[in-house]
Amino acid sequence: MQKLMPGYENVSPLGVMNFLSEVEFDYPKAISFASGRPTESFFDLDAWLGAIGVFQKHDAELHGYDTSASARRLAQYGRTGGLINAIVAAQVANDDGLTCTPEQIVITNGCQEAMALCLQTLCCHPGDVILARNPTYIGVTGAARLAGVELAPVDAAADGSLAGTLRRTVAALHARGKRVRGLYLIPEFDNPTGAVISVPDREAILVFCAERNIVILEDSTYGMFRFEGDARPALATLDTSGTVIYLGTYSKTLCPSVRVGSAIVPKTLFGDAAASREFLASMTERKSFLTVNTSQFNQALVGGVLLAEGCSLRRLVRPALEFYRRNRDALMERLAVTLGTSPAGIRWNHPQGGFFLSVELPFRFEACDMVRCASEYDVIVMPMSFFSLDDSQANRVRLAFSNLSVEQVGAGIERFAAYIHDRLAQETVYGSFTSSVN
Amino acid sequence: MQKLMPGYENVSPLGVMNFLSEVEFDYPKAISFASGRPTESFFDLDAWLGAIGVFQKHDAELHGYDTSASARRLAQYGRTGGLINAIVAAQVANDDGLTCTPEQIVITNGCQEAMALCLQTLCCHPGDVILARNPTYIGVTGAARLAGVELAPVDAAADGSLAGTLRRTVAALHARGKRVRGLYLIPEFDNPTGAVISVPDREAILVFCAERNIVILEDSTYGMFRFEGDARPALATLDTSGTVIYLGTYSKTLCPSVRVGSAIVPKTLFGDAAASREFLASMTERKSFLTVNTSQFNQALVGGVLLAEGCSLRRLVRPALEFYRRNRDALMERLAVTLGTSPAGIRWNHPQGGFFLSVELPFRFEACDMVRCASEYDVIVMPMSFFSLDDSQANRVRLAFSNLSVEQVGAGIERFAAYIHDRLAQETVYGSFTSSVN
Repeated sequence: MQKLMPGYENVSPLGVMNFLSEVEFDYPKAISFASGRPTESFFDLDAWLGAIGVFQKHDAELHGYDTSASARRLAQYGRTGGLINAIVAAQVANDDGLTCTPEQIVITNGCQEAMALCLQTLCCHPGDVILARNPTYIGVTGAARLAGVELAPVDAAADGSLAGTLRRTVAALHARGKRVRGLYLIPEFDNPTGAVISVPDREAILVFCAERNIVILEDSTYGMFRFEGDARPALATLDTSGTVIYLGTYSKTLCPSVRVGSAIVPKTLFGDAAASREFLASMTERKSFLTVNTSQFNQALVGGVLLAEGCSLRRLVRPALEFYRRNRDALMERLAVTLGTSPAGIRWNHPQGGFFLSVELPFRFEACDMVRCASEYDVIVMPMSFFSLDDSQANRVRLAFSNLSVEQVGAGIERFAAYIHDRLAQETVYGSFTSSVN
Repeated sequence: MQKLMPGYENVSPLGVMNFLSEVEFDYPKAISFASGRPTESFFDLDAWLGAIGVFQKHDAELHGYDTSASARRLAQYGRTGGLINAIVAAQVANDDGLTCTPEQIVITNGCQEAMALCLQTLCCHPGDVILARNPTYIGVTGAARLAGVELAPVDAAADGSLAGTLRRTVAALHARGKRVRGLYLIPEFDNPTGAVISVPDREAILVFCAERNIVILEDSTYGMFRFEGDARPALATLDTSGTVIYLGTYSKTLCPSVRVGSAIVPKTLFGDAAASREFLASMTERKSFLTVNTSQFNQALVGGVLLAEGCSLRRLVRPALEFYRRNRDALMERLAVTLGTSPAGIRWNHPQGGFFLSVELPFRFEACDMVRCASEYDVIVMPMSFFSLDDSQANRVRLAFSNLSVEQVGAGIERFAAYIHDRLAQETVYGSFTSSVN
């Protein structure tokens, strides 16, 4: 921790992801809204390890092996593209309404590897650019930097829509001689903001990207965790032009340690079947020289759980979904009580699902403020600037509510509100408050 | 398969690794010396999965958790650098005589990820070059190409030594304005040749690289599989100057599906402790944006097996070691009987361990010849040109003997010898034999 960001003053964007996993170690007494880890309350390690046997039995029957031959096959090197592709295809059909063949899927070491491989495969020329909604998931920022790919911000318009600003951003990049290759989005319950993209906005984004051969990388990580309202169709299910690569993970629905994710590539990329096959072949080759293949033990574990659940995760995630909903409710209630009557300039959204909520403050909140909050108020919140591709997010923070108890959520918000009230009182005294809200 | 290399005529170097895993599917009747997969005869999936419990118990005792807290911790995200570093440190101390601290180790998704991360971390400027003995492991060739890093060949001298040619190669690269950052070597039982680097050559290579700040990437994959003769000390154990990064894997000693490997970075890189810490931090950050962390299930499996074995793999690998030795013996015997009295120009080495043997032929052996061998003689051998960084290996083949029975080894060599005899007879008729050996 100290090595990567001494004193936290100069947080390198590349260091934030490590920071997220390690900041809690430095302030063990603080209640942390920092990391979007899934709750551990419903992890069932023994049952999941037992599911490897369920997959083995299925695999043996499918191929006419005896179970010991299936076990040996499982322990050996496997196909780079994956072992459980057909089962994953059935699950996304059931849970997300997405129809695909096993050959369209590459099974990866979590969603992060899927994303990194897609970025590298898409951007093979200097001047190739990927777009991302701003602020965005730090994992895509890091993967782009490591691949030497420019990540250009798309800011939401005042009404929250993206299609309009997308058009302007792409025009400006074209004028600079850039080739826009992809657009990274988390349409359902965005990390870090918790926002959802509306259906008309989804349709407009799809039409725009299809016309310009911009591949949409749709990250579905939080899609299973909707608390209320109707589910929006995934971009990939609206896609009739071969525009969307659908990225998935079992880190949140099962647990992070499985390290199993996937990329689902359209059958025809912008109508071109050969381009799609080439993309898959190139992506798979890249994977073979990074990680060879995704552990077949872990694939068998995921495959076995899915088989046992009838290739749907809806039933399995229900307790966690209720847990997250209760935390969201507690968060909304405490925010209203502690900050609802505060001066203008404090606002937050009402996430309909997922792990995150964002708060807008009437002052800048930076790494040093986070440290002060942690050390003096025993609460950790993340500056939104950590996730930003420019300077536009300095007044916002991200609250992750996925790995706390209801009591911790309540107490944590009390502490954060105390910090805000103290700071507002102080800044009013020193006269800086009015200048920073205007 | 067909997609990547239609007709096998134009085998792209990047396609060889996929090719290795998939060629057997295309010729199911052929005996294959193609892939260096470990034997499956001693895989013990149930026992290994059971070892996760051994690790859990150890982990709970170590940290004062109850076992259910330990299970939840295991299923969650973990530290990017790894969970079982102390156990791995104990194992390399016992088995390889290498002393290191847990902090020097990064646990990776197999040796391939360790290698890819090291290449990327070492080579951050245009003109940075990695050296490799020629021919070399296709995994390092692929990883270098994907990272945009030039991989320069170091050919062995007539007596098999490398230090002399290393000196000349580096001088030539410096003259071209290149910065040589690393040297990739498999000193024990090289893939693809089976060769071993002598102790004086190891010492000379170390002195040379230490003087020029060239990091040696020592791949120890086959080191545990010595059939005869005294073990040579690993370069990392001879290293007093902070020159060697030691790469390890459990894919061959346990099984490939664990996808657990490691990189051990010297405490001081060329005497500089800060440089070493920076290297580790940069490598770990890269890992966090590629694969987040290595699955803690798989780490726990490896950790549990190691704990149960007293942190040494010597006892566990003995049956496989005997298996490989018997195959090597059968291979040597059949080669002597079928090709020992053939005309000059057919030679092979006597591997003292590992998975591979190389044969030199009096004619070129290319991808099309491999296909002819497979389809007409029902035997698959790998052209050494697949592993070559230049045109120098056209007359050699690699025979992998790790995943065949003794009977298959014997029958396979009979078939390969029949191909060679037929081809020699044919080429003598057409007059091309004498021209191609001279």
